[in-house]
Amino acid sequence: MEIPYKIYLSEKEIPQAWYNVRADMKKKPAPIVNPGTMQPATADELRPVFCDELVKQELDNDTAYIEIPQPIRDFYKMYRPSPLVRAYCLEKALGTPAKIYYKFEGNNTSGSHKLNSAIAQAYYAKQQGLKGVTTETGAGQWGTALSMATAYFGLDCKVYMVKVSYEQKPFRREVMRTYGASVTPSPSDTTNVGRAILAEHPGTGGSLGCAISEAVEAAVTTDGYRYVLGSVLNQVLLHQSVIGLETKAALDKYGIHPDMIIGCAGGGSNLGGLISPFVGEKLRGEADYQIIAVEPASCPSFTRGKYAYDFCDTGHICPLAKMYTLGSNFMPSPNHAGGLRYHGMSTILSELYDQGLMEARSVEQTRVFDAAVQFARVEGILPAPESSHAIRVAIDEAEKCKQTGESKTIVFGLTGTGYFDLVAYQKYNDHEMTDYIPTDDDLKRSLAQLPQQPAF
Amino acid sequence: MEIPYKIYLSEKEIPQAWYNVRADMKKKPAPIVNPGTMQPATADELRPVFCDELVKQELDNDTAYIEIPQPIRDFYKMYRPSPLVRAYCLEKALGTPAKIYYKFEGNNTSGSHKLNSAIAQAYYAKQQGLKGVTTETGAGQWGTALSMATAYFGLDCKVYMVKVSYEQKPFRREVMRTYGASVTPSPSDTTNVGRAILAEHPGTGGSLGCAISEAVEAAVTTDGYRYVLGSVLNQVLLHQSVIGLETKAALDKYGIHPDMIIGCAGGGSNLGGLISPFVGEKLRGEADYQIIAVEPASCPSFTRGKYAYDFCDTGHICPLAKMYTLGSNFMPSPNHAGGLRYHGMSTILSELYDQGLMEARSVEQTRVFDAAVQFARVEGILPAPESSHAIRVAIDEAEKCKQTGESKTIVFGLTGTGYFDLVAYQKYNDHEMTDYIPTDDDLKRSLAQLPQQPAF
Repeated sequence: MEIPYKIYLSEKEIPQAWYNVRADMKKKPAPIVNPGTMQPATADELRPVFCDELVKQELDNDTAYIEIPQPIRDFYKMYRPSPLVRAYCLEKALGTPAKIYYKFEGNNTSGSHKLNSAIAQAYYAKQQGLKGVTTETGAGQWGTALSMATAYFGLDCKVYMVKVSYEQKPFRREVMRTYGASVTPSPSDTTNVGRAILAEHPGTGGSLGCAISEAVEAAVTTDGYRYVLGSVLNQVLLHQSVIGLETKAALDKYGIHPDMIIGCAGGGSNLGGLISPFVGEKLRGEADYQIIAVEPASCPSFTRGKYAYDFCDTGHICPLAKMYTLGSNFMPSPNHAGGLRYHGMSTILSELYDQGLMEARSVEQTRVFDAAVQFARVEGILPAPESSHAIRVAIDEAEKCKQTGESKTIVFGLTGTGYFDLVAYQKYNDHEMTDYIPTDDDLKRSLAQLPQQPAF
Repeated sequence: MEIPYKIYLSEKEIPQAWYNVRADMKKKPAPIVNPGTMQPATADELRPVFCDELVKQELDNDTAYIEIPQPIRDFYKMYRPSPLVRAYCLEKALGTPAKIYYKFEGNNTSGSHKLNSAIAQAYYAKQQGLKGVTTETGAGQWGTALSMATAYFGLDCKVYMVKVSYEQKPFRREVMRTYGASVTPSPSDTTNVGRAILAEHPGTGGSLGCAISEAVEAAVTTDGYRYVLGSVLNQVLLHQSVIGLETKAALDKYGIHPDMIIGCAGGGSNLGGLISPFVGEKLRGEADYQIIAVEPASCPSFTRGKYAYDFCDTGHICPLAKMYTLGSNFMPSPNHAGGLRYHGMSTILSELYDQGLMEARSVEQTRVFDAAVQFARVEGILPAPESSHAIRVAIDEAEKCKQTGESKTIVFGLTGTGYFDLVAYQKYNDHEMTDYIPTDDDLKRSLAQLPQQPAF
């Protein structure tokens, strides 16, 4: 059967249900822990922060398929199914016998996969009769996606944007405002935690940890609001499973069995979503795949981190999660893939990695941009720096195939576009980009500050 | 038959041939004229500037279908067929009985329809054995598309970018550089005309007219180079017919007959491409459609211009073309739809308009941005300011249907995305956007300077 450049499923083939990989895991991901009690956080403890239905999804380790409500499926129809693209032009440029496919999540205004979970979270907030949601954003992809979702359901959206990004990325900020979100540079004088930080550090550019703290405070102190988060959480990986389910359906349609599946990993939501159904088959002993997480060498949670309970945020106001972590005080040195600069990793992926169900590689950013530009010039799409980590390893593997003569089938996740990352491309074009790799001492220092571990 | 949100044709349904509407016009568009001889420009006169095959296409008024070479069709497969979207969410938000469809050309890295002609022009340059091409760019959409196309075929690409845009739109510039183009701020010291202008006006921000002059000079004085242009020309409308052919095929598949077809018009390439096959049916007496060109009130070539021979460029180095024009010295007051700030209009569209085969409306930019934001919030896509002119009139017409109770079928062209136009959105979000409409005296002044008209 001739395989087209782009495999598009029909709208009827958008999955009816998300797939919850936890249901097929014999050893479940470790529960999140309330740092006050040092016991697993209960639904009652989580409900003031998150929407009720999302709390349920967060804690549900057993239900394999969770139905996607019709209004969410209708929204998905505006930009899904996303194409699974055969990278014919890249294969030809590389002269490789490998067959390369990528699932492209960038064809929507948020420019990334983040919209898949944003619309779900906004829907449940609306269903609960809430007035609005709060969140933080760093580079701005998540904030953009959320503002699109809340505009669609007529919800209020308060975004705390790290001040330095607010000033340096005015375009992202304006997209959010265009979709009706209020965007506040963080730290701000609208919260207690913001005012305290401003008093102590006047003129600070802010941090993601601080923005999280402000967003959570705004949610719990404002009637009719909840806090929403774009990665790391179990619920987010659940929603993102739509990526993997569509990928698998498209491959199955053409009888293609991938040998390896590659994705970039920051908090883990896109990778978790992409690999879920494939990992499910591995867990059930139905099929085998090589699965590779790619992370920046500047923030190597999997490859150089420790599997332990840690704070999810630098502000230490969120629960503890067991994950591969570099320590919540780890300051990743500058790297243009802002979406991958997270000290930890999704609990689900951490457990899968610990069980040997996936492997991980770290790559330096100059090699990542080499791959990004090579890809852009032959495949047309200008990739996000985050996504380009997966491109780098896909190309590396395709080049190995060229040497060995193997014609492996490689699938990778192209999570988004780089239209708002042109400062990074400019640095690369001007040969001013450098690599940063933390020293062993750096990691030792930040890992020395892990919190007390739960007794269970 | 249930109509999906997005009608995607298969890759096999990408048109095999472009449609040349001139073949079905009884009265042909007026020929371009050499201002030296005041006679129609000959192929011999055009070949030093344009590629041989493109000269042929430019002058061919008779061949109805011109085959699309396979390498161009292969490139088209990377981003075409583009979706024809049923605007269910917009219809619902408006509460209109109208049925609204839009052909979305923004799902590629150039962010617009420009790529359809860029890849064709690059292909013919490659076929001719040329080393490279030169062009000018203002806002940068065309330059981006061309740099993607030349990267694909391994051609050199020299872009002269209006200096003020070069400085104010660094992101567009970096996309072009990422695709390997050299981008020179114009006026520059790399050409005679550039040096002359710099000597006379040191510190000038440049103009499109000046950038065209530099690009043409660079092409004709450099061995193995030709000049390429992204709009206005007959050849460009020919290549853009792929938009209309796909639109018609998608509508036919579902048995949909549009009542009206709406597109924005600057130089006319997207509108010309979109309407070509529909106008063909009108010309052959097979069907009827209301066709509406939408232009900015600040640059109203159709609605307030004169149908006469004029220079295509402000630098007066290009041939004369007969078109609806405001005068080549007309300086459009600031408007954020840079792609529509052209004093003239495609010769083909001008002739169709003169024959009464289409109508035209002009709209103010604040009303355009009202429509853009309304559209973005319900349909998800952040539209380019240019495209939003068509959205404005589509919404106006849908609202008329609400009043009359008619359920007309409206098709409009959504030519591109607004990711690089966020300065304009910011002005709108901050309520700092104003409207500019030239006075009758302004137009009288610029129209008084039309060149001598040919005797034939």
